[in-house]
Amino acid sequence: MSVIPNKKNAKTIKLKEVTSKIKEEFMSVNTAVKSIDIRNLKDYVNQEVVLKGWVSNRRSGKDLEFVVMRDGSGFCQAVVAAQNVSASQFESISKAGLETSLIITGTVIEDQRQIGGYEIQVSNVEIVAYAQEYPIAKKEHGVDFLMDKRHLWLRSKKQWATMQIRNTIIFSMHTFFQEHGFVQMDAPIFTGNACEGTTDLFETDFYGDPAYLSQSGQLYGEAMAMAMGKIYTFGPTFRAEKSKTRRHLSEFWMIEPEMAYYDNDMNMDLIEDFLRYLVGQVLEKNKAELEILERDTSKMEQVVNPFPRITYTEAVRILRGEQEVNGKTSIEVLETEMAELKQMISDNEAEISEKEEIIAKGGIKKGKMNFYKNKVETLKSENKAHAEVLGNIPQWLDSARNFSEGEDFGGSDETVLTKLFNAPVMVYNWPTPIKAFYMKEVDGDPNFVKGVDVLAPEGYGEIIGGAERETDIDVLKRKIVEHELPMEAFEWYLDLRRYGSVPHAGFGIGLERFVSWMTGIKHVRESIPFPRMYGRLLP
Amino acid sequence: MSVIPNKKNAKTIKLKEVTSKIKEEFMSVNTAVKSIDIRNLKDYVNQEVVLKGWVSNRRSGKDLEFVVMRDGSGFCQAVVAAQNVSASQFESISKAGLETSLIITGTVIEDQRQIGGYEIQVSNVEIVAYAQEYPIAKKEHGVDFLMDKRHLWLRSKKQWATMQIRNTIIFSMHTFFQEHGFVQMDAPIFTGNACEGTTDLFETDFYGDPAYLSQSGQLYGEAMAMAMGKIYTFGPTFRAEKSKTRRHLSEFWMIEPEMAYYDNDMNMDLIEDFLRYLVGQVLEKNKAELEILERDTSKMEQVVNPFPRITYTEAVRILRGEQEVNGKTSIEVLETEMAELKQMISDNEAEISEKEEIIAKGGIKKGKMNFYKNKVETLKSENKAHAEVLGNIPQWLDSARNFSEGEDFGGSDETVLTKLFNAPVMVYNWPTPIKAFYMKEVDGDPNFVKGVDVLAPEGYGEIIGGAERETDIDVLKRKIVEHELPMEAFEWYLDLRRYGSVPHAGFGIGLERFVSWMTGIKHVRESIPFPRMYGRLLP
Repeated sequence: MSVIPNKKNAKTIKLKEVTSKIKEEFMSVNTAVKSIDIRNLKDYVNQEVVLKGWVSNRRSGKDLEFVVMRDGSGFCQAVVAAQNVSASQFESISKAGLETSLIITGTVIEDQRQIGGYEIQVSNVEIVAYAQEYPIAKKEHGVDFLMDKRHLWLRSKKQWATMQIRNTIIFSMHTFFQEHGFVQMDAPIFTGNACEGTTDLFETDFYGDPAYLSQSGQLYGEAMAMAMGKIYTFGPTFRAEKSKTRRHLSEFWMIEPEMAYYDNDMNMDLIEDFLRYLVGQVLEKNKAELEILERDTSKMEQVVNPFPRITYTEAVRILRGEQEVNGKTSIEVLETEMAELKQMISDNEAEISEKEEIIAKGGIKKGKMNFYKNKVETLKSENKAHAEVLGNIPQWLDSARNFSEGEDFGGSDETVLTKLFNAPVMVYNWPTPIKAFYMKEVDGDPNFVKGVDVLAPEGYGEIIGGAERETDIDVLKRKIVEHELPMEAFEWYLDLRRYGSVPHAGFGIGLERFVSWMTGIKHVRESIPFPRMYGRLLP
Repeated sequence: MSVIPNKKNAKTIKLKEVTSKIKEEFMSVNTAVKSIDIRNLKDYVNQEVVLKGWVSNRRSGKDLEFVVMRDGSGFCQAVVAAQNVSASQFESISKAGLETSLIITGTVIEDQRQIGGYEIQVSNVEIVAYAQEYPIAKKEHGVDFLMDKRHLWLRSKKQWATMQIRNTIIFSMHTFFQEHGFVQMDAPIFTGNACEGTTDLFETDFYGDPAYLSQSGQLYGEAMAMAMGKIYTFGPTFRAEKSKTRRHLSEFWMIEPEMAYYDNDMNMDLIEDFLRYLVGQVLEKNKAELEILERDTSKMEQVVNPFPRITYTEAVRILRGEQEVNGKTSIEVLETEMAELKQMISDNEAEISEKEEIIAKGGIKKGKMNFYKNKVETLKSENKAHAEVLGNIPQWLDSARNFSEGEDFGGSDETVLTKLFNAPVMVYNWPTPIKAFYMKEVDGDPNFVKGVDVLAPEGYGEIIGGAERETDIDVLKRKIVEHELPMEAFEWYLDLRRYGSVPHAGFGIGLERFVSWMTGIKHVRESIPFPRMYGRLLP
């Protein structure tokens, strides 16, 4: 048995030749055999069903074809035995390359060894359309190649799993807010004022006037909260950043709740409930997808713990190693991690030597040989990852020890802080100069504002930024002047303080960063169907 | 008793003076009295509750203040009796103008005569912040003025009701698709190719390359359906149209489901289920809001009836009066409507004369006099509306009788067609030349394509456009050439036919048009929080 790649010389059957044949099959509602989605196989055990999808993989045995079929809702193995279908059908499936579209009829058999736990014993196969040789093979492709083929890459198992999780997250966000009495309101994309400078903004010509693509709906969110009490926006935002980083996209989706009569403590309560709900939904609904992504979910599961809430000032002391968390300083934690990594690397190296000796000696069965070879590969790749982290820690230690109070935290500082806790960390009360003009000053201490950043573990860093908003119109006006912003552009915003100002707060969460954390992917570009960033506008 | 407007000389209490006082009140979770939303009053009858909101209206009686309070979740009347609160509290409320923010404590009393069916007997009042004189009064304002004050106008009852219905629609759309196994996928906003010319497109500079803001996610939707089976997009789309019409926005939201292994009949089944579900949800969840909007829901309720499905060719015959519907031609229906309108106008005129005579004669009580005067106003305004429709019908008749086969339907043609049926009308199989290149040709008749337009009643016209997509790569290539489109820009799209092409279909629904229909508003600009159109970019 071997994986059979698409044959260049396989005849491509024109779709119009086959669509007429399959029409009744896929249309008929009254057909005796029910057409179902793969994800619902569990409800049809030992029943005959119709599945419509594509060949995700195929291998041949003697008088047998094993097709891994995908239909967008899931994956399953379909076994076509020559004795169960016509000769022409068996021939048609034995020519089917990757991504050939097909409709099968068969009986659902429970089989825990198979993908998803079920297998189809096929009684009928109809090829809908043979595919040309599929450009995405099992072998490793470069990311640029895969991004050029994004319209096809989305069919791959890991991309599919990522998009399923993204969907769970989106709908869970809506469900959470709707169940908590929030009203979804859309902030405008086109904004007439470049409130905070035009450097990062995308500009367009709006009937002769310049208009800018929104970077945040927050100011509008405040107006809408004054009308509806509790609102959330859910829309794309744009940032023209001429750099390629693993955390930035030019076009990304933001969710920004805003609540009247909320202070920052209530804001943090809400954030905690919200994140706990979202992570819980992903863990519950996407077990199969998380497995496909080989996601270690242990850190995600920590969201059941209370989220630590520390002030910026405490965070600085903790980062510098001046304050302990659970009896340990950040410096001790990092040094322990270094020692552990060194030990793991040396243990792995010993095992690699041992296994390589056995391989070199030879005289063992092929299966056993392959097992050892794979084991060596795995250990080497583990050590590569360990070495990378180990190489970073001295810089992290340096950055942490010498952190300058008043600055914003860097990526490594965020990573270090989250290592000390067993849940996402909320850092609140930030230095006024590094936060936006609209954040409310801490009572009696204008050097700090009531902002909150939420840091995700595992190096995913800031995933939420929020704040209680300034309600005093005089303070706002002073800060607009201090930030050198155009007062006139904010007159409508100041109106919110002129007509029934109330304490209010809100936060923003970037969808793609959150999807990246949940799926464990390293680069945010895989968290959105068609990413847009510096150097990437197509397809 | 009289409506008391805001007093220019009313002292505006600074928010910071009062926030400290109210802090414990609005923050405390452990307070003995529960802080609730107005929409939940029904669960707290005869209990003491705290409400946090704004003054929507206020009138004074002897030692009584009647405050209509709003909190974003609803409206209710709060009665402050001098004997039940301190003297200073009574004074503070008797100075409160529109939009003053306040927190009250009181007992919930069931009273069917009041807004929402409940009234609060207030035991404590805290003013959070007095409002400056509120610019939006009870009197009629011009739409431009109101649009300039959109950030405040959203607080008005009808705008609030519209946004609540919009929210119901959005969440119902998500719920419907999620329950039917669809995956939400976001199409990109930035597109690198101006596939169908640049005239209606907004352009921006994407790191040195031109990029265009999406007008539809459909082509991407097809790619995503091939990966996920059934998907829907939910995002903003953009159209640079230098004209002010009541049906167009420059920035509007589109929902575009796309389904693999669907033909146009299945597409129409889905559309029918979808619309029936959405309208049902609005009728069920937004009774109060529909009442505020004075919405006659009789036509909406017709969605329980099967949606007629007629071909374009039948629609043309029906429109021209060449084919009857339920025993009547379009011409007869319009002529009957004209006769009925004339009769109603003349009946009203008779009643107006009669009432005006009584008024002129005098000698009746003031209450009765006002009743007659109001009646006359109502009848005159009814007649104005009747006369407007009556004035339009001759043009409609003319347009219908002389409709040129092969053209697209105009707004009045759509209105006439829907008048003949008792549910939204689906028109399918359209002339090839007036539809997009990607629609699938009707089997054996390339003059028609498998498109479908759904026409809403009451003059709201086309609210959905959909189609089965062409699967034959050769036909697609020919049509791309015929439409003079750049082949290269469509290579990725053609890939979807090269690698496992399957029958597929989908549709698009414009959120704002649908919200307009449900709410009965005449101009689409009120269906979105912050509309963007020719001449409107602020606030």
